[in-house]
Amino acid sequence: MTTYAESGVNIDAGNEAVHLMRAAIRRTYTAAVLSDTGSFGGLYSLKALAGMREPVLVASTDGVGTKTKVASRLNRWGTIGQDLVNHCTNDILVQGAQPLFFLDYVASSKLIPQQIAEIVGGMAAACEALGIALLGGETAEMPGVYLDGEVDVVGTIVGVVEREQIIDGRRVQMGDALVNLPSSGLHTNGYSLARRVLADLDWDAPRADLNGVSIGEALLAVHRPYLHEVQAIQSAGVEIRALAHITGGGIVENLPRVLPTGLSFDLLPNTWPVPPIFRLIQQQGQITDEEMMRVFNMGLGMIAVVPADQAERAVASVDGASVVGHIREGEHG
Amino acid sequence: MTTYAESGVNIDAGNEAVHLMRAAIRRTYTAAVLSDTGSFGGLYSLKALAGMREPVLVASTDGVGTKTKVASRLNRWGTIGQDLVNHCTNDILVQGAQPLFFLDYVASSKLIPQQIAEIVGGMAAACEALGIALLGGETAEMPGVYLDGEVDVVGTIVGVVEREQIIDGRRVQMGDALVNLPSSGLHTNGYSLARRVLADLDWDAPRADLNGVSIGEALLAVHRPYLHEVQAIQSAGVEIRALAHITGGGIVENLPRVLPTGLSFDLLPNTWPVPPIFRLIQQQGQITDEEMMRVFNMGLGMIAVVPADQAERAVASVDGASVVGHIREGEHG
Repeated sequence: MTTYAESGVNIDAGNEAVHLMRAAIRRTYTAAVLSDTGSFGGLYSLKALAGMREPVLVASTDGVGTKTKVASRLNRWGTIGQDLVNHCTNDILVQGAQPLFFLDYVASSKLIPQQIAEIVGGMAAACEALGIALLGGETAEMPGVYLDGEVDVVGTIVGVVEREQIIDGRRVQMGDALVNLPSSGLHTNGYSLARRVLADLDWDAPRADLNGVSIGEALLAVHRPYLHEVQAIQSAGVEIRALAHITGGGIVENLPRVLPTGLSFDLLPNTWPVPPIFRLIQQQGQITDEEMMRVFNMGLGMIAVVPADQAERAVASVDGASVVGHIREGEHG
Repeated sequence: MTTYAESGVNIDAGNEAVHLMRAAIRRTYTAAVLSDTGSFGGLYSLKALAGMREPVLVASTDGVGTKTKVASRLNRWGTIGQDLVNHCTNDILVQGAQPLFFLDYVASSKLIPQQIAEIVGGMAAACEALGIALLGGETAEMPGVYLDGEVDVVGTIVGVVEREQIIDGRRVQMGDALVNLPSSGLHTNGYSLARRVLADLDWDAPRADLNGVSIGEALLAVHRPYLHEVQAIQSAGVEIRALAHITGGGIVENLPRVLPTGLSFDLLPNTWPVPPIFRLIQQQGQITDEEMMRVFNMGLGMIAVVPADQAERAVASVDGASVVGHIREGEHG
């Protein structure tokens, strides 16, 4: 383990970007963090959990896939770290977990301090916004493993949930409503297909069919975290019976994973906003609607399954949310 | 987050290696693990920590560096996962932490189920041996990011220590003894240099100067975990005042990090066994003693700093351990 103070990026101690990054990391330190940059591994006190009946840690590791290749083509690294933190946050949020801390790993054939600082600075900003401590990280220079100029970023998040409050879908019933929390774009899935069909277009010019942003900007749109949105729904007194983070495989594959046997779902057409980048990808690649729904989130960022009579209250709690379908009997597949 | 049941390696459900891997993962599940393979993120109950005064989590993320390129050259993947688990275990052990659970990430340009199964099988075996739950993992196929045939493996470990029992070196005094826990070889550091100077030799033939093993076998020797050794020393009633995991930078850079200001150390020559692979690397590369000590562990796997009058008891607790030096006044650098 190296904290950033000891990592490769620290060798060039005079680098302004690295100094800024370290300041950004410190700002993520909550009262529970015992170690300071410069010590060994990250220390996180559980003292604040003493009031919980049975705290359960929820942990998840993930990368952002080939979205890094979009960052590489545009040489814009500030958002990839945000994508990673937000993606990981959503992955444990679906079980009801509140994130506590995050660790990261950034590797490349050759580490460029400015690039690392941008990536980690993005992680720190996303952590700070969500109250997550950026507890540690590691950088690795691996010539002969990574292609020149390419980067992989990997994050691990640890959160906590009261055992009795784990969200696991077992109380989902026929007739429950599907409430969508809208996505900002591709989030972190479908980039291999998107890059292929858009490869020959201009990625820098603003486009009318993308509401005035460029393809590059649309592709790099930051993965939205839904922590505050889910908290807002719960604060409104709504019972969330299941949560599905719509990642690779789309709603078709991700929602069934949290439904009890014997229950499936129907979507209501045209009930949620589809970010325009998806229309462009579909036109350029001449892709069927069905494949689009299987590869991309299509605007469905996270689905909350709630009792039908509480759906309106859930929708009113979150900007842009809408009822997009309901639970029905039947097998999914 | 995907547990292995949902990951890419599961697509080929008929693959025997993958089935074996999943069985191996299940064997690592301690009573604290609530989720089963097939559910979402890994759930780890903290119920068993209820008796602690102030439990502190210690977390660390790391890779195994270009040791993966040795595995790739030899196409032997069974040990890399063990290296990673053991390395991470040692990284939190130096602060006194008992490991609880581990998560991994394996990425390549193209995922080969047999290869992933060997890597993850190695992780599971190492976890089982140390009582660590292999709580989750992620695989990623990243064509255009990784070079063909190359793999990166990243692990995150989370452990726990009673706050009052954190080992931080602050009680280290002049005259304290350095007790070495011997390494098995390079562990996970110095592979770029080692591969370069050994590149043109035969890596498969047994060699007399390596006690009958091949260069390939010597280079892949598994990173030793020191959890049980440190527990044995503590059980013998020895006060461990500092622990240093000797990784990149050798003892020269790693031991000073845990010493209080104003204290340094002296090594006693010829007091520990130097694995023969280091002699071969030094001869082939015509490398100075000083550089060898800065790049490699040279047989010094972990250093425990203990009161001088308890050193003999510490040494008697661990096979192959020896007193290799002592703490003196002075600035290191």
